[in-house]
Amino acid sequence: MSAAIDLAVSTVIFALRPDAAGHLVLSIPLVRRTRDPFEGRWALPGGAADAAESLADTAARKLAETTGLSPAYLEQLYCFGEPDRSPSGRVVSVVYWALVRTDEAELAAEGENVAWFEADELPQLAFDHNLIVGYALWRLRTKLEYSRIAHAFLGPTFTLAELRQVHEIVLQKPLDPANFRRQIEASRAVVPTGQHVTGGRHRPPRLYRYDASVQLVDNGPLTSAGIR
Amino acid sequence: MSAAIDLAVSTVIFALRPDAAGHLVLSIPLVRRTRDPFEGRWALPGGAADAAESLADTAARKLAETTGLSPAYLEQLYCFGEPDRSPSGRVVSVVYWALVRTDEAELAAEGENVAWFEADELPQLAFDHNLIVGYALWRLRTKLEYSRIAHAFLGPTFTLAELRQVHEIVLQKPLDPANFRRQIEASRAVVPTGQHVTGGRHRPPRLYRYDASVQLVDNGPLTSAGIR
Repeated sequence: MSAAIDLAVSTVIFALRPDAAGHLVLSIPLVRRTRDPFEGRWALPGGAADAAESLADTAARKLAETTGLSPAYLEQLYCFGEPDRSPSGRVVSVVYWALVRTDEAELAAEGENVAWFEADELPQLAFDHNLIVGYALWRLRTKLEYSRIAHAFLGPTFTLAELRQVHEIVLQKPLDPANFRRQIEASRAVVPTGQHVTGGRHRPPRLYRYDASVQLVDNGPLTSAGIR
Repeated sequence: MSAAIDLAVSTVIFALRPDAAGHLVLSIPLVRRTRDPFEGRWALPGGAADAAESLADTAARKLAETTGLSPAYLEQLYCFGEPDRSPSGRVVSVVYWALVRTDEAELAAEGENVAWFEADELPQLAFDHNLIVGYALWRLRTKLEYSRIAHAFLGPTFTLAELRQVHEIVLQKPLDPANFRRQIEASRAVVPTGQHVTGGRHRPPRLYRYDASVQLVDNGPLTSAGIR
């Protein structure tokens, strides 16, 4: 029976990228399909699973091939397997989601068939990819609140204002700076580095880093699928 | 490439069952393999994916066929796809996990090739099934604390003592009754039914139910994979 099922691997990649007005927005890169089904529609980067490669490795390789990106965070999202999700035969897709930093996202390949879209304002995508992105958005927003993945959008050190901005953009709501500081400090997820932002300011903001001794998130049972 | 990959569906089923001394223990049913690879070893119930059926439906059907069980809770756990996990060729397994009530578990089929095991004291299983059960245990214990799935082990109504017992057995630690009551009441996850346990007691315990207006857990993007 299983011979009639194709296995694919796709990835939802999130980054905070500047829009035309220079404001950071939650964005995902998509690839335009050049063949049927759904020729011309935008779709998640991915492709057929490879018999010799782990699923996470296939996800990372397909990502690199189409977008040039190498994410700071890669986690399995869900396996999508409804019988009618592809008009050209049964395809089960193992979907990963990934976070990349803003500076990395700026280096991503773009072209006629690869482009970034605002995550909350997508066109009609190929297959069930709108459903998949919607679920990935829900997972990102949920996980941001109970775990500590926001730092994957940032560099290794950051100010509390930068961290709060990541939360504000992803959660799409303003956060009170004093409350945010209290919550973050109470969570003990970040620790001061002892350093400050360099530059000519009178009171330069303190730099923080995540506490690496705390397990960050559920990365699945296999470390190879975790933070790279 | 994907033609060389077999797709399977398996399920980790948890129930609280009485051991020989009559104490409830966290248990899972396993099926003895009757052919290679791993002939004679115990394994998770499951089988090949079916091209005409959703993955969750295959999981539920295989469960019913081997154990007779129809779980109160069924959720996708993870897709396991390491290249070397089966000695007879590449197999990707979409694994579900399920909870069944104690009274249902007592009706489950048992026989020479189907038996219940204590979840924390398993023999060496076929394939990577020890790894899979270990991950399912971790997910169950994590989810019990931040969401509200314990009721799937119970009937629709229960006393706080019964709910605490579920937590104690799954988490393998005693919980202070007064603290537990405060935490559960603060979470607003359960509401009093207004009824009490029937019987001849002077002060019969109050019965509670889960508040159905609160979304219970992340059941994945597809309602068909959720609570049945």
